[in-house]
Amino acid sequence: MTENRPSKPHSGRQNPSGRQNLDPHLERYAARTAGMTASEIRALFAVASRPEVVSLAGGMPNLAALPLDTLSAQVAEIIAEDGLVALQYGSAHGVPALREQICEIMALEGIKAHPDDVVVTVGSQMGLDMVTRLFCDPGDVVIAEGPSYVGALGSFAAYQAQVVHVAMDEHGLVPELLREALDRTEKAGRRVKFLYTIPNFHNPAGVTLAVERRAEILEICRTHGVLVVEDNPYGLLGFDGQTYPALRSTDPDNVVYLGSFSKTFASGLRVGWVLAPHAVREKLVLAAESATLCPPTFNQMIVSRYLATHDWKGQIKKFRENYRDRRDAILSALDQYLPPGCSWTKPDDGFYVWVTVPEGVDTKAMLPRAVTARVAYASGTGFYADGFGSRQMRLSYCYPTPERIREGVRRLAAVLESEMDLARTFGNVSARRIQGPQNPSPDTV
Amino acid sequence: MTENRPSKPHSGRQNPSGRQNLDPHLERYAARTAGMTASEIRALFAVASRPEVVSLAGGMPNLAALPLDTLSAQVAEIIAEDGLVALQYGSAHGVPALREQICEIMALEGIKAHPDDVVVTVGSQMGLDMVTRLFCDPGDVVIAEGPSYVGALGSFAAYQAQVVHVAMDEHGLVPELLREALDRTEKAGRRVKFLYTIPNFHNPAGVTLAVERRAEILEICRTHGVLVVEDNPYGLLGFDGQTYPALRSTDPDNVVYLGSFSKTFASGLRVGWVLAPHAVREKLVLAAESATLCPPTFNQMIVSRYLATHDWKGQIKKFRENYRDRRDAILSALDQYLPPGCSWTKPDDGFYVWVTVPEGVDTKAMLPRAVTARVAYASGTGFYADGFGSRQMRLSYCYPTPERIREGVRRLAAVLESEMDLARTFGNVSARRIQGPQNPSPDTV
Repeated sequence: MTENRPSKPHSGRQNPSGRQNLDPHLERYAARTAGMTASEIRALFAVASRPEVVSLAGGMPNLAALPLDTLSAQVAEIIAEDGLVALQYGSAHGVPALREQICEIMALEGIKAHPDDVVVTVGSQMGLDMVTRLFCDPGDVVIAEGPSYVGALGSFAAYQAQVVHVAMDEHGLVPELLREALDRTEKAGRRVKFLYTIPNFHNPAGVTLAVERRAEILEICRTHGVLVVEDNPYGLLGFDGQTYPALRSTDPDNVVYLGSFSKTFASGLRVGWVLAPHAVREKLVLAAESATLCPPTFNQMIVSRYLATHDWKGQIKKFRENYRDRRDAILSALDQYLPPGCSWTKPDDGFYVWVTVPEGVDTKAMLPRAVTARVAYASGTGFYADGFGSRQMRLSYCYPTPERIREGVRRLAAVLESEMDLARTFGNVSARRIQGPQNPSPDTV
Repeated sequence: MTENRPSKPHSGRQNPSGRQNLDPHLERYAARTAGMTASEIRALFAVASRPEVVSLAGGMPNLAALPLDTLSAQVAEIIAEDGLVALQYGSAHGVPALREQICEIMALEGIKAHPDDVVVTVGSQMGLDMVTRLFCDPGDVVIAEGPSYVGALGSFAAYQAQVVHVAMDEHGLVPELLREALDRTEKAGRRVKFLYTIPNFHNPAGVTLAVERRAEILEICRTHGVLVVEDNPYGLLGFDGQTYPALRSTDPDNVVYLGSFSKTFASGLRVGWVLAPHAVREKLVLAAESATLCPPTFNQMIVSRYLATHDWKGQIKKFRENYRDRRDAILSALDQYLPPGCSWTKPDDGFYVWVTVPEGVDTKAMLPRAVTARVAYASGTGFYADGFGSRQMRLSYCYPTPERIREGVRRLAAVLESEMDLARTFGNVSARRIQGPQNPSPDTV
């Protein structure tokens, strides 16, 4: 039934450089598409996803502990008992019962919220996209940690917002550097719309914002008239069960909070939420309506029933224990195998270790060689909007088994040794990138 | 656990008009939010959704004929057998097996496509939003039928695209008027990015584009260098089982095709797709990734299994018969009850009748009175980007039973009679709107 891809390429048209352009639509695209670029790992996806490759690249949660039998019975019940609701359009705002449960979850981090101010989204990514849609005109500035979540940078680019990174240290975002960045950006006549921050178990940096810094950061943003967008997908996954007070809990009118069930329950259902200041919420619902009409009703009912009937806090405890074992495995493997000159964060929680490699090694250039050696990672440049990060990489320990993690790190160490040998012998032959101190990573601060 | 809404309003700030503004974030919103407005029916939603109100307003498909027992067993199987895949992130491109099945479905309308060029979206609304994201800079023009789908107008507004409407007659979009609109827009120095069209069983107009016009419209768009976005959610629902050749079937390089399972299977799963020209597809995947990361994996697997194991064409036949009965009911009720001076389309298929009322009656102003009389409809202004439509309304016959439809039309007729009486006595006291011939509806051409 399907057409075979023609072997002859499209005829295309000539572009000004004289090279043949294979896309006849090139002149039609919106300016924002210039910022849409594929991640490095995607180009290698076909190879990197082979079973013999240990992938430390993706951020897929490990779902093996989920009670599939119980869930199987529950989804069947929802369709049998309430199928005509589950399979029908809902509102863009989200299912009311779920929005109430979401308020109970957020209360664990000190948030007092009204269910009316919760908007359910197709994963937290959609929440991020909607918040950017609401606030960012082209050229507006978003302040973000450097490094920051790659999916956030993708949304900011899609709305032509410009990212100014602020460095973290082992206690998270550095208030003094945030103040300086705001002053500098405002003096340059640029409009800052919000601070995008992942306070807990940072992706990719693996650090948590110290509690004593939180009030200061909120105060800085208030003073500068800048909104705070708090992205908190990992907050309940602290390995020792500890939680931190959400930024939203002390500043409800100036914080937009993004939450997700992707890490605490099931990413494939794509259920996340935005808790918005009351004044913002109606516009948020309208924006969401223009994006997807409504989030899937069935999926919201699945999450709602799971929360109502299952020991979901006990389940999160199981997840946390899984991740702690994997964190222990990667840290001991990094200690054992990585050559001198490498440094890395020591995460107390979360999914990621952020590694800095010696000068002369370019993690983006090295990636194809690593994949050939059957290990994949995410090179650091993807986590910066400004080209920084070529000496950094993110290693995800969330998904593979501890044994595979150890083996992956062993392979990675061999590739690194060989790159460092080359660099010592020939200098860095990869394209030179920004490696200066203007956006220090947690390891270079 | 949830906070009570404080009874004291936010302190707010003064805006230039001197009135107190309750939204402290007002100056922060992006310019595009100016185009985000709630539909008239939404303001009345709490009342209009009471059971005693006959709603002819929504476009909810009637799912009563779905085999819930079978579906219940199938969703349970997917979780039990393949839950770790179903509940996990997938690719932004979509599940490969489903993309192959989608190609088989599109073949029913003459489309030859490669599964690689299909991108699964969170309903067709997301497809529309992504296409607009890819192609429209602020100020770019989209040509659309007048009236057009309200959700499409919402996406165009979100990207600050400007809509130029072209009228239809009983055979759909009028080629000569399309040519004139393109000439006029180009002469004004404006950039037209695409024609957005619903060729089959139009929402809201209830007409179908004549087959003999299709090649001409494609040719006009090609000549003017304008892409065609073909939105076809209803194509397989022709009451007599007839299908029409998709625009995409004869012009694969210049048509972006939007499809959906919302009307042929289950809207609440939010599974739709875009078939894009090959050159566009990669950018589309990147855009989708920035919007939601990926569509829900579980939902795609449900649709795929349903298509593979169920007599889905037989199911569509049942849906069609339901809708045909309802169409018959509404047309006979309109004939019987509506006062002289009203006219309406006679749909062969689809979900909607488009009614034009006598001069002096404003359907938007009348809506609260209709809801008080326990009948709801969608007023015509929502289907135009330019304020036209105050003498039009859309009646949806897809959801209520034939008996309820008859009763709804009877109530509507009484409200109309009373409005017409008032207009005869006092003139039209509602705010005057554009009622001129510059955007004639199907009934005024």
